[in-house]
Amino acid sequence: MEKKPVKIVTIGGGSSYTPELMEGFIKRYDELPIREIWLVDIEDGKEKLEIVGAMAQRMWDASPYDVKVHLTLNRREALKDADFVTTQFRVGLLNARIKDERIPLSYGMLGQETNGAGGMFKALRTIPVILDIVEDMKELCPDAWLINFTNPSGMVTEAVMRYGKWDKVIGLCNVPVGAMMKEPQMIHKTLDELTYKFAGLNHFHWHKVFDNATGNDITQKIIDAIYDPDVDDGTPKNIFNVKFFKEQLDQMQMIPCGYHRYYYRQEEMLKHSLEEYHDVNVGTRGQQVKKTEAELFELYKDPNLNYKPEQLTKRGGTHYSDAACETIASIYANKNTHIVVSTRNNGAVPDLPADCTVEVSSFIGATGARAIAFGPLHPAQRGWLQCMKNMELCVEEAAVTGDYNLLLQAFTLNPQVMSGTTGKRIMDELLIAHKKYLPQFADKIAELEAEGITIKDDIARELTEQGL
Amino acid sequence: MEKKPVKIVTIGGGSSYTPELMEGFIKRYDELPIREIWLVDIEDGKEKLEIVGAMAQRMWDASPYDVKVHLTLNRREALKDADFVTTQFRVGLLNARIKDERIPLSYGMLGQETNGAGGMFKALRTIPVILDIVEDMKELCPDAWLINFTNPSGMVTEAVMRYGKWDKVIGLCNVPVGAMMKEPQMIHKTLDELTYKFAGLNHFHWHKVFDNATGNDITQKIIDAIYDPDVDDGTPKNIFNVKFFKEQLDQMQMIPCGYHRYYYRQEEMLKHSLEEYHDVNVGTRGQQVKKTEAELFELYKDPNLNYKPEQLTKRGGTHYSDAACETIASIYANKNTHIVVSTRNNGAVPDLPADCTVEVSSFIGATGARAIAFGPLHPAQRGWLQCMKNMELCVEEAAVTGDYNLLLQAFTLNPQVMSGTTGKRIMDELLIAHKKYLPQFADKIAELEAEGITIKDDIARELTEQGL
Amino acid sequence: MEKKPVKIVTIGGGSSYTPELMEGFIKRYDELPIREIWLVDIEDGKEKLEIVGAMAQRMWDASPYDVKVHLTLNRREALKDADFVTTQFRVGLLNARIKDERIPLSYGMLGQETNGAGGMFKALRTIPVILDIVEDMKELCPDAWLINFTNPSGMVTEAVMRYGKWDKVIGLCNVPVGAMMKEPQMIHKTLDELTYKFAGLNHFHWHKVFDNATGNDITQKIIDAIYDPDVDDGTPKNIFNVKFFKEQLDQMQMIPCGYHRYYYRQEEMLKHSLEEYHDVNVGTRGQQVKKTEAELFELYKDPNLNYKPEQLTKRGGTHYSDAACETIASIYANKNTHIVVSTRNNGAVPDLPADCTVEVSSFIGATGARAIAFGPLHPAQRGWLQCMKNMELCVEEAAVTGDYNLLLQAFTLNPQVMSGTTGKRIMDELLIAHKKYLPQFADKIAELEAEGITIKDDIARELTEQGL
Amino acid sequence: MEKKPVKIVTIGGGSSYTPELMEGFIKRYDELPIREIWLVDIEDGKEKLEIVGAMAQRMWDASPYDVKVHLTLNRREALKDADFVTTQFRVGLLNARIKDERIPLSYGMLGQETNGAGGMFKALRTIPVILDIVEDMKELCPDAWLINFTNPSGMVTEAVMRYGKWDKVIGLCNVPVGAMMKEPQMIHKTLDELTYKFAGLNHFHWHKVFDNATGNDITQKIIDAIYDPDVDDGTPKNIFNVKFFKEQLDQMQMIPCGYHRYYYRQEEMLKHSLEEYHDVNVGTRGQQVKKTEAELFELYKDPNLNYKPEQLTKRGGTHYSDAACETIASIYANKNTHIVVSTRNNGAVPDLPADCTVEVSSFIGATGARAIAFGPLHPAQRGWLQCMKNMELCVEEAAVTGDYNLLLQAFTLNPQVMSGTTGKRIMDELLIAHKKYLPQFADKIAELEAEGITIKDDIARELTEQGL
Repeated sequence: MEKKPVKIVTIGGGSSYTPELMEGFIKRYDELPIREIWLVDIEDGKEKLEIVGAMAQRMWDASPYDVKVHLTLNRREALKDADFVTTQFRVGLLNARIKDERIPLSYGMLGQETNGAGGMFKALRTIPVILDIVEDMKELCPDAWLINFTNPSGMVTEAVMRYGKWDKVIGLCNVPVGAMMKEPQMIHKTLDELTYKFAGLNHFHWHKVFDNATGNDITQKIIDAIYDPDVDDGTPKNIFNVKFFKEQLDQMQMIPCGYHRYYYRQEEMLKHSLEEYHDVNVGTRGQQVKKTEAELFELYKDPNLNYKPEQLTKRGGTHYSDAACETIASIYANKNTHIVVSTRNNGAVPDLPADCTVEVSSFIGATGARAIAFGPLHPAQRGWLQCMKNMELCVEEAAVTGDYNLLLQAFTLNPQVMSGTTGKRIMDELLIAHKKYLPQFADKIAELEAEGITIKDDIARELTEQGL
Repeated sequence: MEKKPVKIVTIGGGSSYTPELMEGFIKRYDELPIREIWLVDIEDGKEKLEIVGAMAQRMWDASPYDVKVHLTLNRREALKDADFVTTQFRVGLLNARIKDERIPLSYGMLGQETNGAGGMFKALRTIPVILDIVEDMKELCPDAWLINFTNPSGMVTEAVMRYGKWDKVIGLCNVPVGAMMKEPQMIHKTLDELTYKFAGLNHFHWHKVFDNATGNDITQKIIDAIYDPDVDDGTPKNIFNVKFFKEQLDQMQMIPCGYHRYYYRQEEMLKHSLEEYHDVNVGTRGQQVKKTEAELFELYKDPNLNYKPEQLTKRGGTHYSDAACETIASIYANKNTHIVVSTRNNGAVPDLPADCTVEVSSFIGATGARAIAFGPLHPAQRGWLQCMKNMELCVEEAAVTGDYNLLLQAFTLNPQVMSGTTGKRIMDELLIAHKKYLPQFADKIAELEAEGITIKDDIARELTEQGL
Repeated sequence: MEKKPVKIVTIGGGSSYTPELMEGFIKRYDELPIREIWLVDIEDGKEKLEIVGAMAQRMWDASPYDVKVHLTLNRREALKDADFVTTQFRVGLLNARIKDERIPLSYGMLGQETNGAGGMFKALRTIPVILDIVEDMKELCPDAWLINFTNPSGMVTEAVMRYGKWDKVIGLCNVPVGAMMKEPQMIHKTLDELTYKFAGLNHFHWHKVFDNATGNDITQKIIDAIYDPDVDDGTPKNIFNVKFFKEQLDQMQMIPCGYHRYYYRQEEMLKHSLEEYHDVNVGTRGQQVKKTEAELFELYKDPNLNYKPEQLTKRGGTHYSDAACETIASIYANKNTHIVVSTRNNGAVPDLPADCTVEVSSFIGATGARAIAFGPLHPAQRGWLQCMKNMELCVEEAAVTGDYNLLLQAFTLNPQVMSGTTGKRIMDELLIAHKKYLPQFADKIAELEAEGITIKDDIARELTEQGL
Repeated sequence: MEKKPVKIVTIGGGSSYTPELMEGFIKRYDELPIREIWLVDIEDGKEKLEIVGAMAQRMWDASPYDVKVHLTLNRREALKDADFVTTQFRVGLLNARIKDERIPLSYGMLGQETNGAGGMFKALRTIPVILDIVEDMKELCPDAWLINFTNPSGMVTEAVMRYGKWDKVIGLCNVPVGAMMKEPQMIHKTLDELTYKFAGLNHFHWHKVFDNATGNDITQKIIDAIYDPDVDDGTPKNIFNVKFFKEQLDQMQMIPCGYHRYYYRQEEMLKHSLEEYHDVNVGTRGQQVKKTEAELFELYKDPNLNYKPEQLTKRGGTHYSDAACETIASIYANKNTHIVVSTRNNGAVPDLPADCTVEVSSFIGATGARAIAFGPLHPAQRGWLQCMKNMELCVEEAAVTGDYNLLLQAFTLNPQVMSGTTGKRIMDELLIAHKKYLPQFADKIAELEAEGITIKDDIARELTEQGL
């Protein structure tokens, strides 16, 4: 069987991650021959697109392969006959993230842009856009795969399946990659000596580890190593490095993901976030990333730079693009690679409905992700899991319907938000702050504005006033 | 069919509620002929038992019925050939409740004695005792019904079924009774013009209301009435009367129970509880109840008092005893009365395992509770429900096994506890404070004491030091 | 609350059962005051409608109540402002039943008109008609209750809910009534001394029996009585009276319904049906009923007859109408009567999907049926139950879509049909035989006719040729 | 990581399949280095063990590898420190199979030795023995894998997990291998151009086929090819080659396994089996296999034969041993090979309980089988699947408890048995015929014998009388 070289389309192509993506494709060219790459962005992102697009072309020119990188603001032109569409766009750019984080923190609550208050609003902004993209794909590239790494990756992927009725979608996450890179060395093993089993939701999964020599569960060994003071436990860069209580891990015989800190060590995570928020020299994670990004784009402008610079690693979210490239190569070449992705449950996590989206160990091949049945969880994890999945379902439904009341329900259900007047106020301010990207809530936002609700946080308010 | 008069045994017979229970039995004597009543208590409760026992006998003597009230500290003697055993005991008495409330509040967190931190510890203290009672019942009255109204009623009832393997148990709650007494009049109806459908867990249920004239759902009418400023919404006395956000109720098309305030308006409930905690003239709910109880027992001493005094109503928890009497009468006379009780799910709430305990609308008759199938809940409620049930399952398992790590998991999962150092500290102090009643955790408590952990709250510490 | 007298509409009013229905209403007039009764039938049933309608009016005239019985062929006129609509029509009349039975038997297989080959075809004929009725009801009496006792009652009821999106429907069955009338006396009890718990599907349910004196399960006593040679075991008249193997009942600790004989004693039921089929003096059940009906209508013509004649009891299916009247009275007067009905599962039988229809013990009141949660079944029953429910779902879907392939799947799955060439042939002949009532299969039937498929059984073929 | 060479133990080592097993190991020696092989058998199989053991050693001697084949009747000696234990034994040898087939056929019913009446009895004989083996393994080789290809492979594997509490077990089946070898060429593809997805139970699974070039479902293309008269459809040798009705396959969009013929074309399968049964020159499948086996052992005696002879392929069941070798190599070398095996469901087939055993597409690696989540099935398949799984659960429970009543329930539920007097008689005769291997039913069998029940089929009766 000879397969033809592929056309790749990247929505949000002006992202600072694009060089990593290019590096990943160049590295895998032998198993994933590429015909053409289209980087798509919107008018507001045109300058970045041109900088990073030129850089991307330089990277290919420095490689042995003859690949043309097309830059366009015309999404439909790009999508025509695409084989793989990757989505890494950020509706409202980093300014939206800064608001997502600062508005809750201005009231002493976590904003957390993936599954906290911020993440819920990121879903509200993103889901209508991705559903539009899916409608274009149905018309222009009905056989293409959608590889999503726009966060919150789980909710966005689920919305594509549930509301977009598009099954050829895989949601990616870099967090499992990080765990699998760091943990084996903690116990003096290599990754290929171990078997990893992940189950849960995006940014909310747990894993177990097995020794390939015996087939036995050795998760406890990893847990013990995590609490050995000399060992680096591989926490992603963008999460404050407080440790879980060992007692919890000993009980669960599983290892939570880094984002579980927001749930298992909420007090410390909040304290740390507030410290950063109140320190004008630091700022929230979004503000930090904004600086890093500006530096990156300065680097990318260098006409001699034709490889991914070291500094990108600081950005956080590294491995996302590599996971994307590996996923695409695994589909194309039917590699059956083990990758942890967001995909339809189909029973893999029997504690959740079969038709929802989960993030689980999967084998990725020609037919996409084949989720591995993990089996039931202990009530101590099941409670969290079911709580969060239902919260996600509410957010997705609210994103599609613009139902304010349902959004309030989701906010109340989300364990990162303390329910009450302040939580509701945070939600209202976020609605106002993101008005530009939330047409589905237009009427309610107008009502809130008429009630005189204003944004308390200065930076968030000013960004909003400037239409950013 | 002629049924013989029954023998009733009340464990915790020295409770201030006992007169209400007597009143309930006297009122129903025609359908529930009683042979003898045994009030059982422990050495520490002997004085109260004698006071309330004498009062109970006076009530019967003032009635047309010839019923003997036996008082004993010998539980096994009492249980012999019992037909119905009611449990209303409180392990550690109100002092334990005061600790349950004050220790969390001393760190700025809710203690809440039914499904918060306090409730979890109440379960830890109560479950071993109720399982002992069940063992006695297996031997001494294997055909008897256990009617539990010791809180947390849902967890205690589940432990009886799951770990005690005793199926003839019904857990009671007074909250639904309150709703059904107050709401109809809000919309100018009587209860018999309406049909109520409850589903959820003890102190964590929702209900829908239907108009018997049309069979149609009129929950929205009740919701609207709740927000009509002139209408009394029937909140139980022991819950601070903040209203739910109407937006949430409009979305759910159900009415939460009063205790949902701790989850839907956590901020306000916490603020209110802290105010009471810090006000030496008020104190926590347990402290208030302790005063009320002392007053009640003064009243009970009056050799002329032979009816339930008005003041008992202030106690909170009123209707519990009436619900118990009605349940017993419904079983005895196969009345098929609609009562909301904790019983085996059996699918009534299909979002939860069939073998767990739920609190749902049931018809109570000769075979006990027949739970009515409610059907699936919307994700916005399902998320909460599944979270709480799993928390309960962890607490019950920890109560039986004494597993500290699992208890920490339950604490972390409980939405009333913010996870982190402080939450864990609260748990550790509670373990130390309740050491006397937590033999299953003895080793761990010794360890905590050895680490020098002491109780921060003065009142709780002093009670503990006094062995109370 | 004063409720206004009701308007009852009976579709298939010309049925021989109508006098029983009238008797039931007359008996309950005090709790169910009737304003008017409309008997509706089709052109082909006009003569019967007039006979039975006159008889019905005579029955009311002989009662103390002033109720007018309207006869009409205009369904829409009748439905206008109805409070209760009962459906007891038979698409294709008894001739259709005769074909349903004879065509399978002509090849040595069971036809069984409720859940065998015949029953599947009865569903195919009935479902489109009942869905039409529902559409009329949405327009003409949107608050009315549909009380269905057209067989196969479970499938028809489910189609109303699932495809008609009409929730105010209750499906009736007379079989449980029969069991509850006969069994208590077998153990020298009265019905009110026992509690019955039924679960399963229409004509495919099991029950357990409890003693109200103790609350304990005494099913084994009933089982033992069934095998006591001197005791009448209460089998409905229309099922050949072979006993179940006692070993099976001893294992299940439940009592199957009479129709289970077709599954648990298939060999004997087939043998008996073939004997009747081959005996020209007997004929299939449909032929026997046809004779009984003719005799009944002769009786009904008697202008002096103003009460339900004894002979109707021979008809089989007795109690259906009484169950219907009791159901209607229970809704109207919110009686919360225990009746076994087909209703939405909602988890009552957790081994089946929550959204399907089951036949279970329910309390019937103002909001309709409130199914009682039965809990999981042992695999030995669960296997049958799940097999049959899935068969039903396939039949219903085929009835709506006219999907021949899916119908073949249903036929294959149905345990009363042996799969293979003959089973398929039987299905094809039945399609041809019922062509007049199966417009959804018109194209496929034309194809089958073009292939030269003819009906082997003489009587069935002749009826078809005569357009009956 | 260097893994040490493995010790393989084969229970039932005297089987005619052993040479295929040896061939498979020799072929894979590079990835699966073998230290020693132990062939274990019982006294009755000693002669065969010696013949086939000598042959096995010759095969290794002819290979480049130095492997010693140990022969023993001492199972415990062999199991000591084993790495992999394969089970291919047949309790009662082929004579038991002949009885399994002939006794039902003597009454005109199917015996079918895998999931019919015969298969149920094979499970009853095998489960106690495999549970004994598991007990030995717990003591002698607690880290070993049990690779079972003793039929009924699904039930035996489930019993090992459920009753033996042994998780390191994989059940094998050769049927999926056959489909994957034959089908691709029907549509002019190679297997590596396609992705197969199997789900169901042992000898009762369905599969879907996808094109790796597009990721799309092309099952319909295979279905169409099956009905192209010139194409070989890959039916296993031991199933009469009647085709499924294309209408059913078109509807299900899946391909059933060959054994589904016993359910989808029962009439034809029965007719064919009866023809063979009545033809003294042919006999049932067991009789045919007995002849083939005798021929094979004559061949194996040839001291010059040192390779697997062609004739073994005729035996049926070919590929089993190859699947076993591939499974072992995949575990040892962590190959993550796609193999269809019986393993714990864990949600892979969400229509069945998570804790039961299913046969599904799995990736086999160091931790054993990782089942791939297949998702829900359409009711037309779900009905069969649930019926069969529940039947299996009853058989397994009866095998462990010796509960005759439950066995009768399983017999009644099994769609290959027509319920009634004859079905029960068949069961009783089978119990008597296999008395020697059914100690758990000893009392009941004595009762049946006392009732004078004798075996009708001459051959089966004579075998029994001879103690065979």
